[in-house]
Amino acid sequence: MMSKQIIRTLMVETPSIPGNLGKVATTIGLTGGDIGEIQTVKVGPNYTIRNITVQVDHEEQIEELADALSRLDGGIRLHAVSDEVLHAHEGGKIHMKSKVDLQTLADLRRVYTPGVANVCRIIEKEPDKAKIYTSIGNSVAIVTDGTAILGLGDIGPVAGMPVMEGKAVLFDQLAGINGIPILLNTKDPDEIVRTVMNISPGYSGILLEDIGSPHCFEVEERLKKELDIPVMHDDQHGTAVVTLAATISACKSAGIDLKNAQVGQIGLGAAGLAISRMLMAYGVKDVFGADKSPDAKARLANYGGHPVDSIEMLMNTCDIVIATTGVPGLIQKQWVRPGQVILALSNPKPEIEPEVALQAGAAYAADGRSVNNVLGFPGIFRGVLNAQSSEITHPMLVAAAETIAACTKPGDLVPHPLDLNVHKMVTEAVERVAVQVNRKAEYTCSI
Amino acid sequence: MMSKQIIRTLMVETPSIPGNLGKVATTIGLTGGDIGEIQTVKVGPNYTIRNITVQVDHEEQIEELADALSRLDGGIRLHAVSDEVLHAHEGGKIHMKSKVDLQTLADLRRVYTPGVANVCRIIEKEPDKAKIYTSIGNSVAIVTDGTAILGLGDIGPVAGMPVMEGKAVLFDQLAGINGIPILLNTKDPDEIVRTVMNISPGYSGILLEDIGSPHCFEVEERLKKELDIPVMHDDQHGTAVVTLAATISACKSAGIDLKNAQVGQIGLGAAGLAISRMLMAYGVKDVFGADKSPDAKARLANYGGHPVDSIEMLMNTCDIVIATTGVPGLIQKQWVRPGQVILALSNPKPEIEPEVALQAGAAYAADGRSVNNVLGFPGIFRGVLNAQSSEITHPMLVAAAETIAACTKPGDLVPHPLDLNVHKMVTEAVERVAVQVNRKAEYTCSI
Repeated sequence: MMSKQIIRTLMVETPSIPGNLGKVATTIGLTGGDIGEIQTVKVGPNYTIRNITVQVDHEEQIEELADALSRLDGGIRLHAVSDEVLHAHEGGKIHMKSKVDLQTLADLRRVYTPGVANVCRIIEKEPDKAKIYTSIGNSVAIVTDGTAILGLGDIGPVAGMPVMEGKAVLFDQLAGINGIPILLNTKDPDEIVRTVMNISPGYSGILLEDIGSPHCFEVEERLKKELDIPVMHDDQHGTAVVTLAATISACKSAGIDLKNAQVGQIGLGAAGLAISRMLMAYGVKDVFGADKSPDAKARLANYGGHPVDSIEMLMNTCDIVIATTGVPGLIQKQWVRPGQVILALSNPKPEIEPEVALQAGAAYAADGRSVNNVLGFPGIFRGVLNAQSSEITHPMLVAAAETIAACTKPGDLVPHPLDLNVHKMVTEAVERVAVQVNRKAEYTCSI
Repeated sequence: MMSKQIIRTLMVETPSIPGNLGKVATTIGLTGGDIGEIQTVKVGPNYTIRNITVQVDHEEQIEELADALSRLDGGIRLHAVSDEVLHAHEGGKIHMKSKVDLQTLADLRRVYTPGVANVCRIIEKEPDKAKIYTSIGNSVAIVTDGTAILGLGDIGPVAGMPVMEGKAVLFDQLAGINGIPILLNTKDPDEIVRTVMNISPGYSGILLEDIGSPHCFEVEERLKKELDIPVMHDDQHGTAVVTLAATISACKSAGIDLKNAQVGQIGLGAAGLAISRMLMAYGVKDVFGADKSPDAKARLANYGGHPVDSIEMLMNTCDIVIATTGVPGLIQKQWVRPGQVILALSNPKPEIEPEVALQAGAAYAADGRSVNNVLGFPGIFRGVLNAQSSEITHPMLVAAAETIAACTKPGDLVPHPLDLNVHKMVTEAVERVAVQVNRKAEYTCSI
């Protein structure tokens, strides 16, 4: 999810002679740039001006690119380099909007004093009515301490805010949820738990986001125990849902029976451990795991997985290998077994390039570029909010993953992340399981 | 601000005969209902259907009213009674909206991964850039522990949420600010301070709201000391700003020189003490105060005011009397001195009815119905956010009050609360003072 983070838009004029756009594209490619959309800005009598979106790894490459383009002959001209990413972030990406339009004193009396007092009294008498007459039933706090922002590490909560706002944008646009960023001025697990508990009455769900390992495990477990609203750490379970979906799709492509296969997870951090647990919840009998940390391996064993001593051993044993280590090139070509499925998900560089794995005989190989959490959390939370569920369970998450896999076109790893229909299907799948859980709870209470 | 809290809309059909609407209006008035807007729904060949908005004190009055209307003859019919206040609150009044439209993968790359990573890195290097590239610079937390919601008392933060959402609506519509309700699951001052500090990185201002007295004083003072963003308790200083504005207007009407007059404040709770301090900050030399609580009187003395032993004594001494006790009818008619200005601000019933005070010789008298905080906090916060101020000071608040008074039509107490021009003028006045404070701070730092 983190490849080539620098995005710029180049405005390039090319005389209308065949081959000119090709020259520009080749130049961009040779300096290591990936071309995104190309939009025609102006078609002149004998020239065309286009905006070309380019992704590169480093800022310096943009300068190299500009130099290289300016050296092209035949009248090709670079007019401007603009940073549309920064532009899109100006003023922030979210705004708390009023749903009512205040025009008259009558409007004010209705939504503020004195009218509001009666609504307060109704909720005081019947607290459940808050779900009807306030936004609480549709609100999820997006909580971070800034310790593990994307692949950037502990850059602090304020520098992580653009990611939190991004989540809020996705909540709004894909699921109609109020996503409320909460930036924590503390990294201490006790203090995080205490603070989130103290502000919890305003929300019907908590999305923990980019909280570092291992304190993320403690924070999530304690909040789940203490609160009666759903709590989910997206970097664990959101990632695990989408990874399970991708694994189901990859196995379908490779003709492997996932549940009865030997599956290996390389890297048992927040994501890796959650993926292992999700695979077991799905029904995979044998899940193996490798990690440098003895604590991480002990956690896996605790959940019923099998720790192994080396990556080589894991590669030798498993039909399906998933890697989330953050270490580029960790998996050696000679370790790949014919017919293996390999998902090397670390960004910006995978543990093994898919083409290398395929050359070495893998039946299916992919990197992490398309395995995007966006496919999971909006529908998962929409589903539990709809069901007024007090928790998110593994069966709900497995239902989400199976739905995402079912929406995937043959040969693809996952569906388009902005396909609203997929989010609707995930919502329905999660809601269905959540309603069953609620019913069971009622039944248990009544006997 | 709390009079006649029950609002209903009656749909009434009257045959087109002169006097019919008058009969309906008289019936409503006789059962104690106040008539708001009347909208024509349908004009038939020989009848008219109208929606009549009615405010009453108690739910039962609506039933009496319906009975009385149904007993009217001449073809008058009550078709429906609807609760538009509740309807306006369905689903809550606010929503966290995306400012960007996600349509394509390119949009996703721009506002989420991988593009967002570069924005995070820019803020990591230059934290001040968060004001440009996130919503933090435009966000104010609306924090309550639910202990003093309107005049309803300690009904809890969830039952208070409609008020917090109302504030967020006003922030959005009158000042373009992101107002973020924070509902606290604790009433302990230590815990409130700690929690607000822990979540403070996400905001550029804190509006404390409906927090009870006396712990509101400690909470506000400690947060002001600990945080480098503006903190304001609206029930103290927001109320005080609008009350000072009203007092300035009333004195203008009565021909009294406020600064050199003797001013008395009856009731030294959160609002009363803040009003006393605001009057002194404005330049009133002699501020007297009465309260049952010795602690409250000690607080007034601490700020330079003069505690007096009885309301009668205060009434006898002062040219201007402001009352915020919550006790209807507390001020006796015979205590009123000719030429006095009396603002009896308690809701729903004032300490003395304005007409009674006027009969007794007061030069100007008013109750609290029009003294609405709405006139203060949106422009005050817009001003300090614009100036990137780290605090809200008395000179800023006095500037706000003077501006509100200057926008008031002769004879009125305050301007229309939804007049956007007033909010713009308050913003500019506060910003002007705040920028001077910033400059002085820079100057102090540089020597």
